[in-house]
Amino acid sequence: MFILNNSDPVPLYKQLYNQIRELILSGKLPADTRLPSIRDMAIELSASRNTVDGAYQELYAEGYLYSKPRSGYFVSALNQDTAPQTPAAKPGRNDYLQGPPSNFTYDFHPARLDPESFPTELWRKCFVDSLRRNSEQLVQYGDPQGDWGLRCSIQSYLERSRGVLCDPGQIVICSGLQQSLDIAAHILKENHSVIAVEDPGYHLPRSVFQNHSYTIVPVPVQPGGIDQNRLKASNSTIVYVTPSHQLPLGYVMPVANRLALIEWADSGGKYIIEDDYDSELRYHGKPIPSLQGLRPTGNIIYSGTFSKILSPALRLSYMVLPYSLLASYRKLYRAYFPSVSLLEQRTMANFMEQGHWERHIRRMRMIYKKKHDLLLRSVETHFGKQAVVIGYGAGLHVVLRLPESSHTEVEIIDRARQKGIRLFPFSEFHVNCQPEATTLLLGFGGLKDCEIEYGVAILSRICLSDPVAGIPVDPK
Amino acid sequence: MFILNNSDPVPLYKQLYNQIRELILSGKLPADTRLPSIRDMAIELSASRNTVDGAYQELYAEGYLYSKPRSGYFVSALNQDTAPQTPAAKPGRNDYLQGPPSNFTYDFHPARLDPESFPTELWRKCFVDSLRRNSEQLVQYGDPQGDWGLRCSIQSYLERSRGVLCDPGQIVICSGLQQSLDIAAHILKENHSVIAVEDPGYHLPRSVFQNHSYTIVPVPVQPGGIDQNRLKASNSTIVYVTPSHQLPLGYVMPVANRLALIEWADSGGKYIIEDDYDSELRYHGKPIPSLQGLRPTGNIIYSGTFSKILSPALRLSYMVLPYSLLASYRKLYRAYFPSVSLLEQRTMANFMEQGHWERHIRRMRMIYKKKHDLLLRSVETHFGKQAVVIGYGAGLHVVLRLPESSHTEVEIIDRARQKGIRLFPFSEFHVNCQPEATTLLLGFGGLKDCEIEYGVAILSRICLSDPVAGIPVDPK
Repeated sequence: MFILNNSDPVPLYKQLYNQIRELILSGKLPADTRLPSIRDMAIELSASRNTVDGAYQELYAEGYLYSKPRSGYFVSALNQDTAPQTPAAKPGRNDYLQGPPSNFTYDFHPARLDPESFPTELWRKCFVDSLRRNSEQLVQYGDPQGDWGLRCSIQSYLERSRGVLCDPGQIVICSGLQQSLDIAAHILKENHSVIAVEDPGYHLPRSVFQNHSYTIVPVPVQPGGIDQNRLKASNSTIVYVTPSHQLPLGYVMPVANRLALIEWADSGGKYIIEDDYDSELRYHGKPIPSLQGLRPTGNIIYSGTFSKILSPALRLSYMVLPYSLLASYRKLYRAYFPSVSLLEQRTMANFMEQGHWERHIRRMRMIYKKKHDLLLRSVETHFGKQAVVIGYGAGLHVVLRLPESSHTEVEIIDRARQKGIRLFPFSEFHVNCQPEATTLLLGFGGLKDCEIEYGVAILSRICLSDPVAGIPVDPK
Repeated sequence: MFILNNSDPVPLYKQLYNQIRELILSGKLPADTRLPSIRDMAIELSASRNTVDGAYQELYAEGYLYSKPRSGYFVSALNQDTAPQTPAAKPGRNDYLQGPPSNFTYDFHPARLDPESFPTELWRKCFVDSLRRNSEQLVQYGDPQGDWGLRCSIQSYLERSRGVLCDPGQIVICSGLQQSLDIAAHILKENHSVIAVEDPGYHLPRSVFQNHSYTIVPVPVQPGGIDQNRLKASNSTIVYVTPSHQLPLGYVMPVANRLALIEWADSGGKYIIEDDYDSELRYHGKPIPSLQGLRPTGNIIYSGTFSKILSPALRLSYMVLPYSLLASYRKLYRAYFPSVSLLEQRTMANFMEQGHWERHIRRMRMIYKKKHDLLLRSVETHFGKQAVVIGYGAGLHVVLRLPESSHTEVEIIDRARQKGIRLFPFSEFHVNCQPEATTLLLGFGGLKDCEIEYGVAILSRICLSDPVAGIPVDPK
């Protein structure tokens, strides 16, 4: 009745298990059938008792068999209507395989960093050191708010470089802006339901707050930052802003507007979410101090990240909660777990304590300033007065406003793709406002110097009917 | 008027910036006051022009000054009502400092692993190797669904050891169960609003789904798993279950009940969330195959974790989505980012590819089986027939039901604390059901062998008015 095959890699007891299970499920062994005793079955199969016992134990544990003391094992009553179907043929592995990584020669995506910039050797040392010192900590859950040492390092860095005044107890370590916003949306939900966002602006806050059933109010952005008259006229009680370097337009909010915005928040328990995503990268003068630093006791949620300077793949960011929200945070997140690996947090804390982080910022600022300046020069050479550059001087991208006569965004992106150029569609930043003219977002972080020059030259041919200069000699 | 101090570590331009800013904010330099030219100011201060230029540029960038072509810099009009307040004195660092880590001699918390078990040296090797091979990948965001290589390793492991049949395209890498549940709650929200959970059961699903405004229906747990009659009578269209090892009671759901539950889900687009959190740890027979394996094409969200065998501090888990939810997942999470570090994902993939993961499971199963058996023997010795052990044979905890005459949970936990014993309150698992008698949850993963024996002996003195055996000699 049963066939066991010694040369099959499946263990014998498992072969027997499979065959009995099949008979039960197909109904060929009906309910309450008594199975042969272990001894009899072993003799019949010329197998060891352990083999039979293993199969019976497993069938028993899964409920296919029941046992009666001193009588042996019997087949359980299964509802045959609910017997498992034979699994459908598995879909081919390739059905969900992503295509090969995009293979653009000139990738102007704004979220890419310099490809050779990751401090591999220093990171390895900091990691190995933190692994050696913390292996006993790895057997338990850590602090849900984040490693205390890392929070202390971030606090002191933020105070020195961003003017943020806070206590490490206000800092929450997150696995990226999305998680910070999720937490913010959650703890604010009790008393708030409408959030204003910059238009044009980053899509992520819109989608996270939408998930939490908030009403999203897009408010136009001017050179001085979000339009505060429109903000005041709205019924929003939360606003998400990028005051140091408006995403995507690059504007810096002047201090008068900052103070007015803080005043708005102070009047009646409103909240500001200040996303300071790339403030370390300012190429002229010092970085602009934060809103939080202007009113450390105000209703400001400050958010920062290691994604722009160090690596977006590490998924390490942080948020500073105002005192007014700490109690709600603790109440709602008491039962949660940390979201970032302890090893990675300790590695980052090591990296900061040893001064590598601030040295790395300085190094990256020089590297990106060079790229930034080269991009501006290339745009001047190839677009001349036919493009207006806005939002320059900081970050990892600039914005180019093209003459009204130029092609549409869709046409340009499509033609660029054919020439091996990847552009991130600027229109994705828009909710209601539409730019008067075609606007390009040129991220330069991931490009080599020669690629910037050549990429901009090709772009000018694509965008302009009458480009200013010829294409330089292909550096490839 | 301004004093620059060469021996101050603050750069000169910053000193000047601070002093001018102070005068503007205090109103001593009123709006539209013209500042001295850079040259004049430099002469007055015996400073370089760069110093003055740096200060002016920064004040200008922040909006404290405005410039008129060929006239110089002027003080901007600030709304004095909104001038920044002097930050309140910073609260002491200690206000939010957590107390020192709990210092129990015998910690029966169920989420602790063996303190010497983390494979530090292997992990280091896998990490260093993945860092070396992937440093260029670190400058960009990875696949939001998780590293493809890791997903392939998980797929093949799940098929071999858990009977889960899926495609790597169905797997989502998460930073823990909370995130998996968050995603599930989010993608199911469109068509569902009521979820049934086990009672007693894990608190996390309740709180995550509550956050997403679901109605939570607690359904009693019987030795055969969740009470399916009660489930059917409810209006729930989602159920969260732990069929391989019910948390906390340790019951295994028999196959007939599994099939019935699958049938329930199949009828009318309902969903099962199968949390297989510690299924690798079964001390007699093989692990029980998953629900997902019984109906790979069914409406089953399968969730697994590396927290119980490897480390809860790494924050690495995964979820297998059914085909029916993949389109919604992609639609809603298209614009999101991964939540786990790429380096950690690649390290784990390395660890699995080289066979370390399955060897580690086997090693940990032996270590925990020994602790588990010792715990049962100790309970027998010290509690005798005065305690009923339920839910044994698997995982990292067992449950002890005490006689009705024993102390209450609160009393026992309190008295245990005084003796250096930490107990996790079993009542936290309860929503509506109350256990008939005091019930203890004894996690044994984090205890050394001698601590198990001695800890149980002390516990018996605390719980029973008439303990069976004396306390063994203190092993410390």
